[in-house]
Amino acid sequence: MSSNTFYLQDVLTADQFHKTDLQLMLTVTKKMKKLVETKGGSDLLKGKLMTALFYEPSSRTFASFISAMQRLGGGFIPLQGVSYSSVAKGETLPDTVRTFGCYSDVVVLRHPEVGSAKIAAEFCEKPIINAGDGVGEHPSQALLDFFTISEHFGGVDGLTITMVGDLLNGRTIHSLSKLLSQYKNVTFNFVSPEILRLPSNLIKTFSDRGVKVTQSETLEEVLPRTDVLYVTRVQKERFTDLDLYEKLKYHYIITPQLLRQAKKTAVVMHPLPRVGEITPEVDLDPRAIYITEQMTNGMYVRMALLSLVLLKDYV
Amino acid sequence: MSSNTFYLQDVLTADQFHKTDLQLMLTVTKKMKKLVETKGGSDLLKGKLMTALFYEPSSRTFASFISAMQRLGGGFIPLQGVSYSSVAKGETLPDTVRTFGCYSDVVVLRHPEVGSAKIAAEFCEKPIINAGDGVGEHPSQALLDFFTISEHFGGVDGLTITMVGDLLNGRTIHSLSKLLSQYKNVTFNFVSPEILRLPSNLIKTFSDRGVKVTQSETLEEVLPRTDVLYVTRVQKERFTDLDLYEKLKYHYIITPQLLRQAKKTAVVMHPLPRVGEITPEVDLDPRAIYITEQMTNGMYVRMALLSLVLLKDYV
Amino acid sequence: MSSNTFYLQDVLTADQFHKTDLQLMLTVTKKMKKLVETKGGSDLLKGKLMTALFYEPSSRTFASFISAMQRLGGGFIPLQGVSYSSVAKGETLPDTVRTFGCYSDVVVLRHPEVGSAKIAAEFCEKPIINAGDGVGEHPSQALLDFFTISEHFGGVDGLTITMVGDLLNGRTIHSLSKLLSQYKNVTFNFVSPEILRLPSNLIKTFSDRGVKVTQSETLEEVLPRTDVLYVTRVQKERFTDLDLYEKLKYHYIITPQLLRQAKKTAVVMHPLPRVGEITPEVDLDPRAIYITEQMTNGMYVRMALLSLVLLKDYV
Repeated sequence: MSSNTFYLQDVLTADQFHKTDLQLMLTVTKKMKKLVETKGGSDLLKGKLMTALFYEPSSRTFASFISAMQRLGGGFIPLQGVSYSSVAKGETLPDTVRTFGCYSDVVVLRHPEVGSAKIAAEFCEKPIINAGDGVGEHPSQALLDFFTISEHFGGVDGLTITMVGDLLNGRTIHSLSKLLSQYKNVTFNFVSPEILRLPSNLIKTFSDRGVKVTQSETLEEVLPRTDVLYVTRVQKERFTDLDLYEKLKYHYIITPQLLRQAKKTAVVMHPLPRVGEITPEVDLDPRAIYITEQMTNGMYVRMALLSLVLLKDYV
Repeated sequence: MSSNTFYLQDVLTADQFHKTDLQLMLTVTKKMKKLVETKGGSDLLKGKLMTALFYEPSSRTFASFISAMQRLGGGFIPLQGVSYSSVAKGETLPDTVRTFGCYSDVVVLRHPEVGSAKIAAEFCEKPIINAGDGVGEHPSQALLDFFTISEHFGGVDGLTITMVGDLLNGRTIHSLSKLLSQYKNVTFNFVSPEILRLPSNLIKTFSDRGVKVTQSETLEEVLPRTDVLYVTRVQKERFTDLDLYEKLKYHYIITPQLLRQAKKTAVVMHPLPRVGEITPEVDLDPRAIYITEQMTNGMYVRMALLSLVLLKDYV
Repeated sequence: MSSNTFYLQDVLTADQFHKTDLQLMLTVTKKMKKLVETKGGSDLLKGKLMTALFYEPSSRTFASFISAMQRLGGGFIPLQGVSYSSVAKGETLPDTVRTFGCYSDVVVLRHPEVGSAKIAAEFCEKPIINAGDGVGEHPSQALLDFFTISEHFGGVDGLTITMVGDLLNGRTIHSLSKLLSQYKNVTFNFVSPEILRLPSNLIKTFSDRGVKVTQSETLEEVLPRTDVLYVTRVQKERFTDLDLYEKLKYHYIITPQLLRQAKKTAVVMHPLPRVGEITPEVDLDPRAIYITEQMTNGMYVRMALLSLVLLKDYV
């Protein structure tokens, strides 16, 4: 068993995961998957409690953490929409998280403001898991996407990953690409409207790490070489030139026709929810792994994360 | 042990229950009742998870399913008022239910639109239990009413059931009478304002099955022959002629005085919540079984339903 | 083992606790603390269910009861914001609590109206624990404050407790001082603006019991003799003379400077949430026990309360 670097640590940002952490996460997540498939769960976290403290709703993330905790025999305190309670009475975030840290062993925090998870971690005696802080970070989403790719292809080295949509504001894309860039011979194709390009400092970081990077406005050229097509939403509200939006949007709707140009071994992923950027017909394509495989991995990864954070001997 | 026809099946409508299903449900519900009364619960569903996905609030149904799941050692994911989350971001019902199907073993769905449970069942890999889809169906309510009557009288054959209130729009009445009409020598007395009569196609169905049916606007004549008085609310908002409403409403308020005309062995039932159609004084009458007996059966029936759906060997 | 006077009883008001009850509560709460510190929890309440029926939000109380129940292996039904459901359909409180009494073994009730817990208790077949009824009572808050003081000082006899803030409307102060007044050689210093003084009938009750009582508008004189400084909020909205408010408010902000006048062995408590009446710098003072010690005791006391109410042999 490797040394557990997650034990009693906060999980705030994808930046904190080094390659050894990712390999440990992969190993434990695979065990969790096998555990659920063979027995449904275990009593590994019996006697442990998780607070799910959600200042803004996110039923998918909320549900997957609660599911993960119970699959391992742990308990939970469900707090969705807390903004109307103590907070409405004027309580500060430090006071609130210290309170829930007294009642439970780990606090999963969703908050609309960038940096809130870091503040919470400074004050709470128990580990904080950042479940999304505004346009900031959402590390468990990055881990589940990373796991999905790595498990599906038996590793990340040598893969070509094409990321499509709003690459400027998409925290999912930023976090995931930081993780993937630690592997060898990786190629990133960033496909977005000109005004929604990936921040240039990230491009530089990836180039410095030896990643091959392309940037373009259309998918057609890179699609045939793509192993992973990671789709996110282009948000209409970010455009002032609506003609441009309409033109670009057209290129980014994934259809069965478009996928004829993709490899037979490629996969299509999406963090969900989607609102039209992948048509429902694509769901029937075996390469569309966003429905069951990626979703279910969300639960397995959170099981791994909770057990690593809560147990020194995590298996 | 009979063959378990519920195992891994969706529970969408009262129409899907044949007499053998009802008998199986009776047997298992009685076992659940005994289990709770003697031990409080069991670990039958340990390792199983239920998502309670409620797009509209219904604290009674929500609570009874959550209670039932935990009485059997299972876990739950509570999602009340989900309309503000992924759904608000534009996600479709199929995407939402597929997600929760990945996190749990069964999805209990409450939704304001008729037919939504059927759509959900087409897309979700796990069983859907319809916990009310608008004015459509609410099969577990029908089963608990059926169980209450059958257990109380030791069977349904030969009973006279009088149903009062809004029979046009009441899904509870429609579903329950479909179940009861499968038994022998049953009499239905439908008592309602002219404009809130039971749909004529249902009257025909029951007559074809050999049920004796009467329809009237007043209770007085049928009450002395009644075994089960099933009361629902007459909704003022459905009337244009308020004088008519006031006149009819008067006949349908169940009071101790009115019950003097009923059999000593009769029972009074109500799906609840009530808002005046049964006066609080009636609660003290031993024939008023809507308070404790019918309520508690709601939990037992849902325990039976969950164990039958989740376990091939359900006892 | 003493006779368990809590078993299957409602917990409605601090008035119902006699000294023997308080001593029993102390004993059991200490066991719960040790249990959590050594093992995290137990299966004492396995098979039991608690409904948390909150008509108004109170995330702290809600979470601590849910935590307490699960630390003891019990289950829970979370109902926050129920006002929109059956209640919105016009259901009465008696019908609602009878329903949840059928689904669970104990009902923890938070309600905005004074006296609602008492009404609920009259109708519900299962014990009601009042978790706050408007400006009325909040007995588990009183018990946790009592436990914190008694455990910290090894008893209550001879202590000087100074209570600051809105003493007219503060149910926390009323309930706690009723409990403490049962002990020997206790001194109460009530510090508040003239218009927010403790009701005179309470002053009389305490004097009759032999408590030494002082009343003043400033802290300075009594602070050096104080063992427990219990701080609550002065609510600006209660003042018509805002100059008076500004003047008094100044005296009641607890700062490190002010605490230089307090004993080294004193403690500072607050029911929380706070909104400025204790500055964050005070948190670093070891005498500030409101953050971790008092908070965590909230969970231990509720564990004790639930086990005493639900189990005849409560340990």
